[in-house]
Amino acid sequence: MNSERRGRRAAASAQPIRQLPWSQPQMTLEPARILSDDQIETIHQQSLQVLEKIGMEILHPEARDILAGAGALVEGERVRIGRDIVEQALTTPPAEFTIRSRNPEHDMRLGGKWIAFAPVGGPPNCSDLDRGRRPGSAEDNANFMKLCQFFNCIHTVGDGSVDALDIHASIRHLEVMRNKVRCSDKVPFVYSTGRARLLDSLEIVRLSCRVSEQEFEREPFAYTVINTNSPFKLDGPMGMGIIEMARRNQACVVTPFTLAGAMAPVTLAGALVEQNAEALACLALSQFARPGAPFVYGAFTSNVDMKSGAPAFGTPEYMKACIAAGQLARRYRLPYRTSSTNAANAVDAQAAYETVFSLWGAIMGGGNLIVHAAGWMEGGLTASYEKFALDIDLLQMVQEFLQPVVVDESAMALDAMLEVGPGGHFFGAKHTLERYATAFYQPLISDWRNFSQWQAAGSPEAAQKANTLWKRALAEYQEPLLDPLAAEAINAFVARRTAEGGEATDF
Amino acid sequence: MNSERRGRRAAASAQPIRQLPWSQPQMTLEPARILSDDQIETIHQQSLQVLEKIGMEILHPEARDILAGAGALVEGERVRIGRDIVEQALTTPPAEFTIRSRNPEHDMRLGGKWIAFAPVGGPPNCSDLDRGRRPGSAEDNANFMKLCQFFNCIHTVGDGSVDALDIHASIRHLEVMRNKVRCSDKVPFVYSTGRARLLDSLEIVRLSCRVSEQEFEREPFAYTVINTNSPFKLDGPMGMGIIEMARRNQACVVTPFTLAGAMAPVTLAGALVEQNAEALACLALSQFARPGAPFVYGAFTSNVDMKSGAPAFGTPEYMKACIAAGQLARRYRLPYRTSSTNAANAVDAQAAYETVFSLWGAIMGGGNLIVHAAGWMEGGLTASYEKFALDIDLLQMVQEFLQPVVVDESAMALDAMLEVGPGGHFFGAKHTLERYATAFYQPLISDWRNFSQWQAAGSPEAAQKANTLWKRALAEYQEPLLDPLAAEAINAFVARRTAEGGEATDF
Repeated sequence: MNSERRGRRAAASAQPIRQLPWSQPQMTLEPARILSDDQIETIHQQSLQVLEKIGMEILHPEARDILAGAGALVEGERVRIGRDIVEQALTTPPAEFTIRSRNPEHDMRLGGKWIAFAPVGGPPNCSDLDRGRRPGSAEDNANFMKLCQFFNCIHTVGDGSVDALDIHASIRHLEVMRNKVRCSDKVPFVYSTGRARLLDSLEIVRLSCRVSEQEFEREPFAYTVINTNSPFKLDGPMGMGIIEMARRNQACVVTPFTLAGAMAPVTLAGALVEQNAEALACLALSQFARPGAPFVYGAFTSNVDMKSGAPAFGTPEYMKACIAAGQLARRYRLPYRTSSTNAANAVDAQAAYETVFSLWGAIMGGGNLIVHAAGWMEGGLTASYEKFALDIDLLQMVQEFLQPVVVDESAMALDAMLEVGPGGHFFGAKHTLERYATAFYQPLISDWRNFSQWQAAGSPEAAQKANTLWKRALAEYQEPLLDPLAAEAINAFVARRTAEGGEATDF
Repeated sequence: MNSERRGRRAAASAQPIRQLPWSQPQMTLEPARILSDDQIETIHQQSLQVLEKIGMEILHPEARDILAGAGALVEGERVRIGRDIVEQALTTPPAEFTIRSRNPEHDMRLGGKWIAFAPVGGPPNCSDLDRGRRPGSAEDNANFMKLCQFFNCIHTVGDGSVDALDIHASIRHLEVMRNKVRCSDKVPFVYSTGRARLLDSLEIVRLSCRVSEQEFEREPFAYTVINTNSPFKLDGPMGMGIIEMARRNQACVVTPFTLAGAMAPVTLAGALVEQNAEALACLALSQFARPGAPFVYGAFTSNVDMKSGAPAFGTPEYMKACIAAGQLARRYRLPYRTSSTNAANAVDAQAAYETVFSLWGAIMGGGNLIVHAAGWMEGGLTASYEKFALDIDLLQMVQEFLQPVVVDESAMALDAMLEVGPGGHFFGAKHTLERYATAFYQPLISDWRNFSQWQAAGSPEAAQKANTLWKRALAEYQEPLLDPLAAEAINAFVARRTAEGGEATDF
């Protein structure tokens, strides 16, 4: 195809991509507050009341046993959790922790002022401008992992971004995890959609890091995301996931998906209470499974389109929820996970503005782990190559924005002003020449040529420029070193587990 | 053209556009701070030093006289302004004021927590998807004024958005101003690019409001924007504008255009010092021309692309400057003007993300008057119809975001949660049914259909939806009532001034 040809030519001829170096940004501003301390306290108290009056339906028997042991009232699958249990659970998790990577330079810090950007996770489909929208494949899955590795502003390889639907579900997790630790030395996400999948995934991570089981349990090397079935339900694999991750001291990001008007009340306050109650219930399960287990307060409250029931993202309601949830997480001194989202079907202006609204909600809200920060489309149904590349520019802009401003004699440039004087210009000033090369963020996508130059270049829109960028990134990508002994051990493990049939499926 | 036909059909068949009612949003959050109080004080002190050491080149003799009268040192055109003069000038302007409209419902409040969105102003070109990019005409100029009037989230008709280049420059201001007060009853911007233009424009505003000259000077009915010629230069018409507006008690928005690396130092701190020094010099001129004259602290600090010298907007540096300038304006208890900007050549993802970055910089920075908030493209060289319509959605989203969250028993929805219970859904809950119609912001552009529905509808991107929206808006637009006596007086005035030759030009 034409644009593919153009992309390849660009990749062949261009300079290496000039990106920001790896570093985790820090939240240098005060996080925004849209609720008063009293309102936060009211939501907290109401959440406790909800956990006592309604509680959670918890399908995993061991999870019910753990909570019963902590004093919860269990009737059938319903578990009502007293406020003393929650208050006790709130005393043990760490406010800040580090997930170790097999490459120490890529350790990922969560909590406090730290920010980490995670890629899109989970869509069944992927898309690019050349090949259109299609079900994800192993190749796509690997490509997204390579992009995660390549771009420094992505701090974890995440969960593989797009499903590898061409691999049978019984062994998909084995192939994807093996590929993940090969393609990237950044912190991995592990599946908790079944006990065997979870333990297999953790084992592959452990083998890749060349640590003993004891060392592996000393600190987190991986994280998972647990979604409740809102309202007030925790299914078997998710309950299992919380327990098994906590027992191994691995990080658990609990994220109720509380769409106001559908799985949660239509009011923001109601949706926040529900989200908070579910997160606190899972926190209790985690902390009574193993006090001090690393836990992340996740929130994913948005609204639906009340005309169609379609989920909406990057909305004003979404931003408010991002900020309010950050206040709740800080009230509990827990690291906070939120997301950068949109509901667009194309990499157009809508994709960009919904993303930037949600991204600023996440940043202003004090998000520590910002998931789906690159590549997410269609409310999570598609991972887009172009959107991924576009988002890199946005994330680098955020990173640059969060660099503190230097105010000192040299920066205030009195001598340059005296040199230039009224009506002059600073282009040639010594002060400028000494600094111009690194003074400003240099974008990867934004086109700042004037209209006629831009038109002469074929009027490229941002999506086309993103198409060129991801191809260049894949062309420049280099596989990180993986200890040959680790690779061998992983291969042997995957071969054995594949021979055993992987995780049984009913299809 | 095809899309025009489609647009017209849509306009004919569709329901009226459902927009938010007129209201000026208020900044319900604490404005962001990227500088410490000490850093703000350092920049303030340094600005005073700059005004003493360098001062300003002021081309208007009367402006020099006024500042000399206040104690400034005048040598030729150079005016050095002592800190006592600035400190004195800072004691007199109002922290908050109202600009009266001829329709009292459209009075515009500036300062404090108030936010007002102004449209794009000043581009020579305009563009739309049907007719492409072209020089602005009187028809385009009027169309943008109609869009300003139509959309409630635009709080002033501004300066006409795009130049009416098909009207001779000598009488253009007369025709445009007459058209402005006809097309819109929102607060108008007036030209201060020449004494006759300014006074003619003010006279047309006064006649449209049916007030006497005494009443007109009692409170502001119009505003102008004064741009310094950075660095440190104030040209004749701009100096005249500050004086004449102050004398008539009309609002003056002084906005140094300090592009770091070009007209200002390459460092943000240096650019802020320059911007601040120039704003304070103009404040002094305004306040010594008439103590208490309504004055707005404007800021327009961005950076250039150091490779090409092209101005850049919506950058991380731009956002930082927006927020820092807001801190300076609040330090002086002055209303703060900033802008929503981008450098894109098409209504693509770049246009959207640069705009939203700058818009959040403006909002988080505590901007009171946010100029260029709809329709600005190409760093100000083009007013785009589609961008205007797209921006309306963004502004409404901001407006909705700033609505306070209600946290009370009813909003927290305990009864609905008890009714729905674990695993249920809230679609049919009484709590939902009572609220769903107005619970969430309903976008004008965003397409939330799923991929296959969206594809079946022809895969419309945001720019196409914006094309439909502005056409519908123009179709639904209704001219506001203008008192026939006012219209007659304005016609007589314009006829007389046209007969006199308008403002002399040298071409």
